[in-house]
Amino acid sequence: MTQGFEDRIRNVALRSRVMTAAEAAELIKDGMVVGMSGFTRSGEAKAVPLALAERARTTPIKITLMTGASLGNDLDKILAEAHVTARRIPFQSDPGLRRMINAGEVMFIDQHLSETVEQLRTQQLPLPDVAVIEAIAITEDGGIIPSTSVGNSASFALLAKKVIIEININQPLGLEGLHDIYIPTYRPNRMPIPIVTPESRVGLPHIPLPPERIAAIVVTEKVDSTATINPPDAETRAIAGHLIGFFEREVTRGHLDHRLAPLQAGIGTVANAVLHGLIDSPFHDLKMYSEVLQDSTFDLMDAGKMTFASGSSITLSAAKYVDVLSRLETFRPRLILRPQEISNHPEVVRRLGLIAINTALEFDIYGNVNSTHIAGTNMMNGIGGSGDFARNAYLSVFVTKSTAKGGVISSVVPMVSHVDHTEHDVDVLVTETGIADLRGLAPRERAPLIIRNCVHPAYRDALMDYFTRAKARGGHTPHVLEEALSWHIRLCDTGRMS
Amino acid sequence: MTQGFEDRIRNVALRSRVMTAAEAAELIKDGMVVGMSGFTRSGEAKAVPLALAERARTTPIKITLMTGASLGNDLDKILAEAHVTARRIPFQSDPGLRRMINAGEVMFIDQHLSETVEQLRTQQLPLPDVAVIEAIAITEDGGIIPSTSVGNSASFALLAKKVIIEININQPLGLEGLHDIYIPTYRPNRMPIPIVTPESRVGLPHIPLPPERIAAIVVTEKVDSTATINPPDAETRAIAGHLIGFFEREVTRGHLDHRLAPLQAGIGTVANAVLHGLIDSPFHDLKMYSEVLQDSTFDLMDAGKMTFASGSSITLSAAKYVDVLSRLETFRPRLILRPQEISNHPEVVRRLGLIAINTALEFDIYGNVNSTHIAGTNMMNGIGGSGDFARNAYLSVFVTKSTAKGGVISSVVPMVSHVDHTEHDVDVLVTETGIADLRGLAPRERAPLIIRNCVHPAYRDALMDYFTRAKARGGHTPHVLEEALSWHIRLCDTGRMS
Repeated sequence: MTQGFEDRIRNVALRSRVMTAAEAAELIKDGMVVGMSGFTRSGEAKAVPLALAERARTTPIKITLMTGASLGNDLDKILAEAHVTARRIPFQSDPGLRRMINAGEVMFIDQHLSETVEQLRTQQLPLPDVAVIEAIAITEDGGIIPSTSVGNSASFALLAKKVIIEININQPLGLEGLHDIYIPTYRPNRMPIPIVTPESRVGLPHIPLPPERIAAIVVTEKVDSTATINPPDAETRAIAGHLIGFFEREVTRGHLDHRLAPLQAGIGTVANAVLHGLIDSPFHDLKMYSEVLQDSTFDLMDAGKMTFASGSSITLSAAKYVDVLSRLETFRPRLILRPQEISNHPEVVRRLGLIAINTALEFDIYGNVNSTHIAGTNMMNGIGGSGDFARNAYLSVFVTKSTAKGGVISSVVPMVSHVDHTEHDVDVLVTETGIADLRGLAPRERAPLIIRNCVHPAYRDALMDYFTRAKARGGHTPHVLEEALSWHIRLCDTGRMS
Repeated sequence: MTQGFEDRIRNVALRSRVMTAAEAAELIKDGMVVGMSGFTRSGEAKAVPLALAERARTTPIKITLMTGASLGNDLDKILAEAHVTARRIPFQSDPGLRRMINAGEVMFIDQHLSETVEQLRTQQLPLPDVAVIEAIAITEDGGIIPSTSVGNSASFALLAKKVIIEININQPLGLEGLHDIYIPTYRPNRMPIPIVTPESRVGLPHIPLPPERIAAIVVTEKVDSTATINPPDAETRAIAGHLIGFFEREVTRGHLDHRLAPLQAGIGTVANAVLHGLIDSPFHDLKMYSEVLQDSTFDLMDAGKMTFASGSSITLSAAKYVDVLSRLETFRPRLILRPQEISNHPEVVRRLGLIAINTALEFDIYGNVNSTHIAGTNMMNGIGGSGDFARNAYLSVFVTKSTAKGGVISSVVPMVSHVDHTEHDVDVLVTETGIADLRGLAPRERAPLIIRNCVHPAYRDALMDYFTRAKARGGHTPHVLEEALSWHIRLCDTGRMS
């Protein structure tokens, strides 16, 4: 038992349910569906999954593992390689698990992140037998206070037959009060979600769980993994510059003012760099309504540029992690962490009118975006929340460098090898070479704009040649079908597209 | 001037603005953006567009034409062939216009039907210079009472610089009271849309337009085009049977009760046949929250199976048109016509938890759906509302016959040649050969299910062979890229896929 215990388990009766991770893990049996906390490597359950992997060394066990999104601390790798993870829902980003998914050894159900608990609630997915949720504390009434992410934890806890709580004493109690737990009412009597600004608080600061539903409590100490965010480079700076220039023109045209609109940004280096670019921009009083709050969110707050941020998790670099957790008192009034169903909810995204900035793996000359599949076949991470945001945003932006792997891959291709976001959901494309504003344009108008503005010079002529020959054949979205995927086929055969 | 005039233009001062269609059409100048009423060939402005086409014989004029959806009375053909339509937004279904779109002569912007006015309101699309709206009457305050569709008429009228009203004296006054005009408030102060059941009335029975905004009134007599719905055949009956059997199993599993959930059905023969199939089913007290109300809606009401229907238009066969319009008193308490932004709104669709039934042009072995493009290149009609519904529905169903053109085309292919609905948005696929419930399945699990249940026997072995060879190469969504589009290439080359 570890120090700080009383602050953390305030319901005295529940203290008797503290046990080791190995004991708690015994509640999980072969074939079960397990819902675990964790979203973009934050706030995941840490001890019970390790105990499960340990147990699998001697006693094979396979589960369906549902989470919020990706897990930290190599847990997705450890669970997959221990052959514990038979099915995985709804997102992952681990190289080890990815390898097994692409080998067909793990069945991966790649979902819009707002939809998983909607499907659970209606029993379109099997309900979790056990939920394992990291918390900073349990209230006197049994309410669970999540840690650095909310993800799907609230619905998992409420829908599971048994709940295991991991009390992480190294997640600061200062996180208390940050969370806003709102669960939509059941159909056919569902009411509107009352969020009308990023600041709207509409729920409870904890997951309201009857104490008798808590089957086990495990005390843990391991901290979240930190994020490795590459610093901005010339290309990501250029992407940020193009997008900020576009925003400035939109202000000049009277479409936006200098507060822009609530921002959403996907995880990763490019989106983070774009947000960083706003620090030295004329924009101010910015707000976020996003899923992951990264370094840039807090840097924008420190720079006096951002007044409020709503998300479902906080995922930071090592240095920023220490800094932010030490100043939680400062940030707390300007932050809310919500269930991912709510942070990503189509209803709220459409109502607030977001500017959504997400990363494309590749896009084609007509503006269709592939976010997930390399050469149409191999899964990278998953669609995540990008579809929740891109479909419903006021302005849907996709960013990427124009080439990958040192230039041998063009991020702009004749036809994407897999579609996650159709041309209907893509307003603006940005690479380091420029920006294409596709709004109100037909496919035949988009192609020359995209090719001219967003394609690396090394691939520009070849794409224009493709488009010219396709156009000669006719069609609303002209293609030379026998060449449409030839760039990807060449990549598979030779390791390069050119 | 035609009889019935006083009933129809109740604001006395406005009667002085009555003029001929040719005179009213003079308000429309070359290069203008024109928003016209009309949704699935119902309630379109009829006289002014004809006058415009007539004028174009001597004085060329080009416009951007926005509507709700498709126009009736061959107007899309007439306007396109008169070279009046330079740009067309957001949907069409006319063979003549389609030919010109595919030839690159008309720029077509194919949009989710809920999004057009959202983009107008934020000036992401150019605002209409002129709106031309069919109405059954104008109230004393200048309020416009639409006819058989609402579509985008309300926002077009409110946002246009000038408004022309076509008072159609052959659209019955009995339609009055059917409409519910609600316009979302402007961001950043937008409130929830207060619709919580299909029956919710949340707006006004007319478009509230200040009388001075009405620049011209034209009195017309031409009726709506009627729909040609092929009667159910063995295949559409089999599709309906599979889907109804599935619903029955869902009831047995406790996922639905016999009232099902509010239904949405796309336009056309197959979806209509599926709804007809519900007449002889154990389901009752059904409701619709859809965009188009077709014959089947009224047949279900007459059969005592459906208690309420909300849509954006009424599109009927010739016989049903006469029948329904003669019994409007009976149907009116059970009907609402809404703006398409609201009938299709993601917020409402998700809240109500619809069963959405839409038609696929083709789908692939992993469940991606093409609704629009023949062989990836030639536009058929447009995505329409299918994306609004499929993405946000409780249950997203796509139906199609397993083959087309007498069997030479398989509706199931290795890889769709264009994606309108990604695998993330497709729950259930149905053809006359069977049904595939894809919920909770990974791509490698979906493929054998789809091939076994939904593919015509003539193509089954070839698709299973493709999948087997693709799987041997590996990947989350296995493909043999150099063969992925070979079925479409063969179709283009030889006129058949086999």
